[in-house]
Amino acid sequence: MLKVGIYGASGYTGQELLRLLGRHPEVDVVALTSRKFNGVPVSDVFPVFEGLTDRKFMDASPHEVAGLCDVVFLALPHGVSMEAVPLFLEAGKKVIDLSADFRLRDINIYEQWYRKHIVPDLIKEAVYGLPELYRDDVKAAKLVANPGCYPTGVILGLAPLLKKRWIDITSIIVDSKSGVSGAGREPQIGTLFCEVDEGFKAYKINQHRHIPEMEQELGLLAGSDVKISFAPHLLPVNRGILNTIYATLQKSVSTAALIDFYKEFYKDEKFVRIYKVGAFPNISSVKGSNYCDIGLTIDSRTKRVIIVSTIDNLVKGAAGQAIQNMNLMCGFREDTGLDLVSLFP
Amino acid sequence: MLKVGIYGASGYTGQELLRLLGRHPEVDVVALTSRKFNGVPVSDVFPVFEGLTDRKFMDASPHEVAGLCDVVFLALPHGVSMEAVPLFLEAGKKVIDLSADFRLRDINIYEQWYRKHIVPDLIKEAVYGLPELYRDDVKAAKLVANPGCYPTGVILGLAPLLKKRWIDITSIIVDSKSGVSGAGREPQIGTLFCEVDEGFKAYKINQHRHIPEMEQELGLLAGSDVKISFAPHLLPVNRGILNTIYATLQKSVSTAALIDFYKEFYKDEKFVRIYKVGAFPNISSVKGSNYCDIGLTIDSRTKRVIIVSTIDNLVKGAAGQAIQNMNLMCGFREDTGLDLVSLFP
Amino acid sequence: MLKVGIYGASGYTGQELLRLLGRHPEVDVVALTSRKFNGVPVSDVFPVFEGLTDRKFMDASPHEVAGLCDVVFLALPHGVSMEAVPLFLEAGKKVIDLSADFRLRDINIYEQWYRKHIVPDLIKEAVYGLPELYRDDVKAAKLVANPGCYPTGVILGLAPLLKKRWIDITSIIVDSKSGVSGAGREPQIGTLFCEVDEGFKAYKINQHRHIPEMEQELGLLAGSDVKISFAPHLLPVNRGILNTIYATLQKSVSTAALIDFYKEFYKDEKFVRIYKVGAFPNISSVKGSNYCDIGLTIDSRTKRVIIVSTIDNLVKGAAGQAIQNMNLMCGFREDTGLDLVSLFP
Amino acid sequence: MLKVGIYGASGYTGQELLRLLGRHPEVDVVALTSRKFNGVPVSDVFPVFEGLTDRKFMDASPHEVAGLCDVVFLALPHGVSMEAVPLFLEAGKKVIDLSADFRLRDINIYEQWYRKHIVPDLIKEAVYGLPELYRDDVKAAKLVANPGCYPTGVILGLAPLLKKRWIDITSIIVDSKSGVSGAGREPQIGTLFCEVDEGFKAYKINQHRHIPEMEQELGLLAGSDVKISFAPHLLPVNRGILNTIYATLQKSVSTAALIDFYKEFYKDEKFVRIYKVGAFPNISSVKGSNYCDIGLTIDSRTKRVIIVSTIDNLVKGAAGQAIQNMNLMCGFREDTGLDLVSLFP
Repeated sequence: MLKVGIYGASGYTGQELLRLLGRHPEVDVVALTSRKFNGVPVSDVFPVFEGLTDRKFMDASPHEVAGLCDVVFLALPHGVSMEAVPLFLEAGKKVIDLSADFRLRDINIYEQWYRKHIVPDLIKEAVYGLPELYRDDVKAAKLVANPGCYPTGVILGLAPLLKKRWIDITSIIVDSKSGVSGAGREPQIGTLFCEVDEGFKAYKINQHRHIPEMEQELGLLAGSDVKISFAPHLLPVNRGILNTIYATLQKSVSTAALIDFYKEFYKDEKFVRIYKVGAFPNISSVKGSNYCDIGLTIDSRTKRVIIVSTIDNLVKGAAGQAIQNMNLMCGFREDTGLDLVSLFP
Repeated sequence: MLKVGIYGASGYTGQELLRLLGRHPEVDVVALTSRKFNGVPVSDVFPVFEGLTDRKFMDASPHEVAGLCDVVFLALPHGVSMEAVPLFLEAGKKVIDLSADFRLRDINIYEQWYRKHIVPDLIKEAVYGLPELYRDDVKAAKLVANPGCYPTGVILGLAPLLKKRWIDITSIIVDSKSGVSGAGREPQIGTLFCEVDEGFKAYKINQHRHIPEMEQELGLLAGSDVKISFAPHLLPVNRGILNTIYATLQKSVSTAALIDFYKEFYKDEKFVRIYKVGAFPNISSVKGSNYCDIGLTIDSRTKRVIIVSTIDNLVKGAAGQAIQNMNLMCGFREDTGLDLVSLFP
Repeated sequence: MLKVGIYGASGYTGQELLRLLGRHPEVDVVALTSRKFNGVPVSDVFPVFEGLTDRKFMDASPHEVAGLCDVVFLALPHGVSMEAVPLFLEAGKKVIDLSADFRLRDINIYEQWYRKHIVPDLIKEAVYGLPELYRDDVKAAKLVANPGCYPTGVILGLAPLLKKRWIDITSIIVDSKSGVSGAGREPQIGTLFCEVDEGFKAYKINQHRHIPEMEQELGLLAGSDVKISFAPHLLPVNRGILNTIYATLQKSVSTAALIDFYKEFYKDEKFVRIYKVGAFPNISSVKGSNYCDIGLTIDSRTKRVIIVSTIDNLVKGAAGQAIQNMNLMCGFREDTGLDLVSLFP
Repeated sequence: MLKVGIYGASGYTGQELLRLLGRHPEVDVVALTSRKFNGVPVSDVFPVFEGLTDRKFMDASPHEVAGLCDVVFLALPHGVSMEAVPLFLEAGKKVIDLSADFRLRDINIYEQWYRKHIVPDLIKEAVYGLPELYRDDVKAAKLVANPGCYPTGVILGLAPLLKKRWIDITSIIVDSKSGVSGAGREPQIGTLFCEVDEGFKAYKINQHRHIPEMEQELGLLAGSDVKISFAPHLLPVNRGILNTIYATLQKSVSTAALIDFYKEFYKDEKFVRIYKVGAFPNISSVKGSNYCDIGLTIDSRTKRVIIVSTIDNLVKGAAGQAIQNMNLMCGFREDTGLDLVSLFP
C-alpha cells in the first residue's frame, strides 16, 4: 500500500481527499496535518467520518510528514505551499500541490497576481496537472501543480476549439458560477448562510487570480497569447462550477459536427462527457463525481459558439483531480478510487 | 378609489399583484379570476393572505370583469391574453397585459416566436411599458404591454450605452440567471424542488422567446438592428434575475466616468440604482422591491464593458412594473404603493 | 415626528428595525450606532438601502445618543445591554431592549443562565413586551424587555390552553426549528453556508437560554411552576421559526371547539392568526411580516393536543415586536408601520 | 453475477438503486422497467448516468422481468406492488418490495390505512426488512417488505429503550423532519421549488401512514401495544430525515450510561453510529450513505429522554436498506456495495 499524507487537511478539500482516498484500494492515509486542530479527532471536525476512523489531526513539520509517507498532497493557502514543497521534494517524495504556487510558468505573472516567489527555480520542475492535456508529463512528474477549479472546466471546454484554431482567440468570454465550498471553511461574513442563500452576485470581475492561469493554458493550446474576459459569480449551492463560455467561430461547422469533434477529441477520456445536440449539463449531474460534463451549441445568427462545462469544484476541481494525478504518478489505473456516480438529488 | 381587476390571478404574478395592490392607497381590487380555483377563497390558495381577505376567486368572463372595474391587469398565458384584451378595450377599460402578446411590434416576429396573432391591428395601439424609456407614452396609453422579466433588466442595463452608440452593437452577449418563480406555479418535473435545489443549468440558449423582445428594444435604442447572444440559466432561488452583459467598447472612457454617465442618465429614475466603482449588485438586494440595480466595469485589457443588472422578476419584472404603469396611466405618483425596501436576508 | 435611535444597529436585527422604521409614518431614525462600522455608510453594510439613505453608522456613547432621540432600541448582546440601559432611562428616554437582560424577573435565574447582573433593581421596572399578554403594562412602560424569538411563538401558542388549565402542565414538549438569521451576522463556522445548507440538526437540547424565559411566562399563565422539554433545531432557511408543541389534554374538547376558543381568545389581536381545522401554518406564510400563525389539532388516541405556531424571527420575534411595543408606548396605533403581507415565494 | 431487476425504476428510489447497484461487485442490473419512459435511455431520465450506460427503460410485464433476473426490487406505488409480487414469487424469484403492501402484519390495519389487500395470504410470508432487528429472518426470506423511511430511523432510535422497557410506552412523541425527495418525482404543486424553498411546515399530523408501521414494530419490541404521537414536517433539503423522539424515562440512568448501552446494543451494527455525550447528528453527516446516526440526552428536570436519529431517506430509508436486505438474502457480505462515506458539504 502506498503511504499518503495530507498536509493542511482541515478544510473542505482536505475532507474530500480523505473521503476519496478512504475508498482507494492502493493507498493508506498515514498523516493528516492541521495546526488549528492539532490533536483533535478527525471525526470531531468532519462528522461524516464518525465511527470510521480514530485518526487525529497532527501539527507536524514537513520533515516529520515526509518521514511517514511516499506521496503528499498539499492543501495549503497560496504562498504557504511553496515553503513546504522543497522539503518534500528533497526528501524524495512525490508532491501534489493544490495551491496556485507552481501553476504559473512565468514568475513575473505569478508575482504580479500573488506574491514574491521563494523557490522560483522549482517552477519549471512542476507539471500542470490536467491529465487530459498533460498525461505523460504527469506520469513522470515529481511535483504536480493541481489546476484551479475555474481553469479545469474552462480549459477542458475550450481545448478542442483552440487546438484547431476554429475560434477568434480575442473573442473569448467566460461567465462562471461557483458553489460556496470553493471559498473554504474559514468563517467570514461573505460566506455566511444568510448572505448567500436566496442571493446571487458577481465578484472579482476581471480580477480573479485564475485569469492568468487560464490565459497561460489557453495560450499554449492556441499557440499564441490569449486574453479573456472573466466574470465569476457565487451560487447558493454547496458544490459545483458551471462555466458558460462564448467565442466567435472562424470555421463553418454545424453544432452536430462540432459535438462529434469534441467526442472524438475526448474519446479516451473517462472523466469528460460530451452531451448530445440540444442537451446541456447541470451541476447536479456531476456533484460528488470526478466528471467534467460539456454541452455545446452554435448560434448561426451571431456566429458564436457557446460552450457549457461543469465540474464538482471539490472533486475534478481539486481533490479528485489530485488523486487522478497521483494515480498517474504512481502507476495505478487512472480512475482508481474515482468511479463515483454523482449524487442526485 | 380606482376599481381594479386581475384576470388570471392564481399564479405567482397574480399573488404579487395582490400583495402590492393591497397596500396601494388609491385602488380597490374588486375582481380576481381563476378558472381552476373558481369559488375558492384566495387565502386557501395563497396562505399569506390568511385573515386579510374573505375574497374568493371567480371564473368570470372578460365582459363581467369589465363591468366591475376601471383598470384590468391580465396575467394570462401568451396567446390567451389576446383573446381577452379587445373585450376590455371595447368596454373602455385600461388594460395592462403581462403576457407577451402585445410586446412585439412586428407581427411576423411575434408569429415566428409565438403563434398566429388574432388581433394584429391592436399591436400598434399598445405601448411597451418600460416607464424609464416610454413614460409619456404610457401615461397616454389604453393598452400597456408589460415587459418581460429578462428584457426589463437587460434593456435598462444597456440603454445608456446604446443611446450613445458607445458599444459595438454586434458584440452584445447576455448571460442571465433567473430564480424559479419565473417558471410559474404549474406543476412540472423541471421545477420540482429536488430538480432545482443544489443544481444550476443553462436552458434555451439562443432560443428563448425574450430574444426578439430584447432585440426590438435594443435596436430602437441603437437606431439600427441589434442581434444578441442570450443564455438564460435557472438559479436555485425563489426570486430574482441577474444579467451579466458583455459588449465591446468603441469609446474611450473610464469605469468611473461611465458610472457617472449612468447616474446622470437615470438621475430622475427612482427605481434604477447605479452602484459605485467596484460594487456590483446581488439579487438579494432587490428581492421584494421594484428596484433595478446596476453595476459596471470596464476591462481595459479586452476593451469590453461588463454590466451587471438585477431585478426581482415578480416585482420590477412583472407585478411591480405593471403597477408602476398603472400609476402613470391613472395619474398617481409613479411610486405609489411601490416604496418597498428589499427583504434581506 | 418621534426621534428614534438604534443602539447596536449593524446586525440583522438592526437592519430589520431600519427596514421597518423607514416606512413608519410617525418616526425619524436619527441615530444608528456601531463600533465596528463607525463612519461607514449604512448602504455599504446593508446594500438593500442603496440610494435610500446617506446615513452612516456612528460609534457614539449612550449619552450622545440620548441627546438625539426620544426612544431608543437596544440591539446589543446579552450582558452589554444592561450597561447602557440605565443611562438612557436616567436621561428620560423610553427604552426597548432586544437583549435578554431584563426579561427574567428572578435575578437568580438570570444569573444562572447568563451572568452577573449589574443593575438588578431595574429588572422590576421592565415590562415583558409581549403586547398580546401585557398591552396595558407596555403602554405605561419606560423600559420594555422585548421577548426572545422562541418564547414569542411558544407563549402565544400555549397561552389560551394554560389560562384555562386545560392541559397537564408537566407534559409540555416544545420542538422548535429556527432559520439561520437568529444566529446573527458574526462570522462563525457553524453558520457558514456550506455547514447549514442541505443540513438539519438539533442543538442545545434542554440547554437553550430561552428555556427560563418560556417557563417564567408559561408559569405566570398557568398560575404555577411549569417545566418544559425544549429542543431547538437549525433550519436551512434565512428567516422563520416554527414551533411544534405537544401537551396532554385534561379537558374533553374537539379540535373544532378548541380552534374556536383560540379564535375567541385572540379575536382582537391583529397579529395572531388562527388556522381552520386541518390547516397548519408554513413559515413562508409569515416571512417578512409581524404575524404569529397558529394551527392546532387533537390526537384523540393519545389525548394530546399538538399546536404549531410560526413567526418571522426577525419581525414578530425581534424588530417588528419591538416596534409594536414602541407604538404602544408612544400612543400610536399598534400596527403602524407593520401592515406588511408576507413575501412568498 | 447475480441478475437483478428493478420494477418501477424511474423515480428517485429507482435511480438510487441504480447508483448503488452500479458499484455492487456481485450483481448485474439486467432489467429496468418504467411505463412512462418505455424505450427512453436511462441517461436521458437521469443525467447522472450520462456516458455510463446505454440501457433503456422497458415497459415489461412481471413475467418478462422474472425471466431475466434472480432478484427483483419493486419500487412501485402502494397498492400496485401487491399485484406484481405474487407473480415474481411464483416464478421462484426473491423479492424486495419497497412499497408498504407487505409491511403490516394485521390486514385490518393495512386496509384501514391503505386499501383492500388482494393477496392477504402472502403477508405472513413477508419479512420486515430491518436487518438490525430481523437479520436471520431476512436471510431466509423470499419476500422482504422494505421498511418505510420514517419507521427506519424511529425504530432504530427507540429499540434499545423499548427492549429494556426503560420508558413509559404511552409517552412516546415523534417529531420528524424529512427532505423533499421522500415525496417522489411526480409533479405536484406542493413539491415545487418555490413552495418548499425558504419554507417549513408540518403535514399529516397524526394521520401519516407510517404510524401503524411504527406502532407495530415498537409494540413488538415493547411486548405490548404502543401508541405514539407523530408529526412529520417537510424540510427544504433534498435528502435526509431527522427524528426527534421524546419519551418519559422509568429507569434511573445517566446520559453517559444510556449512550454506553446504545453502543453495546448496536456494537455489531456497521450502519448504526451512536454519538458521544453532547453530540447530536446532522442529516448532512449521513447524506448519500447507509448510516443511521443517533444522539441521546436525558433531561433530568423532566425525566425525559430525547433521542435524535437521522438517515438518508433514499439510502437507509429505501434503496440502501433494500440492498442490505438483498445482500443478506443472497449470502453476500451485508455491507457489500454500501461502503459510502456521506457527501458533505
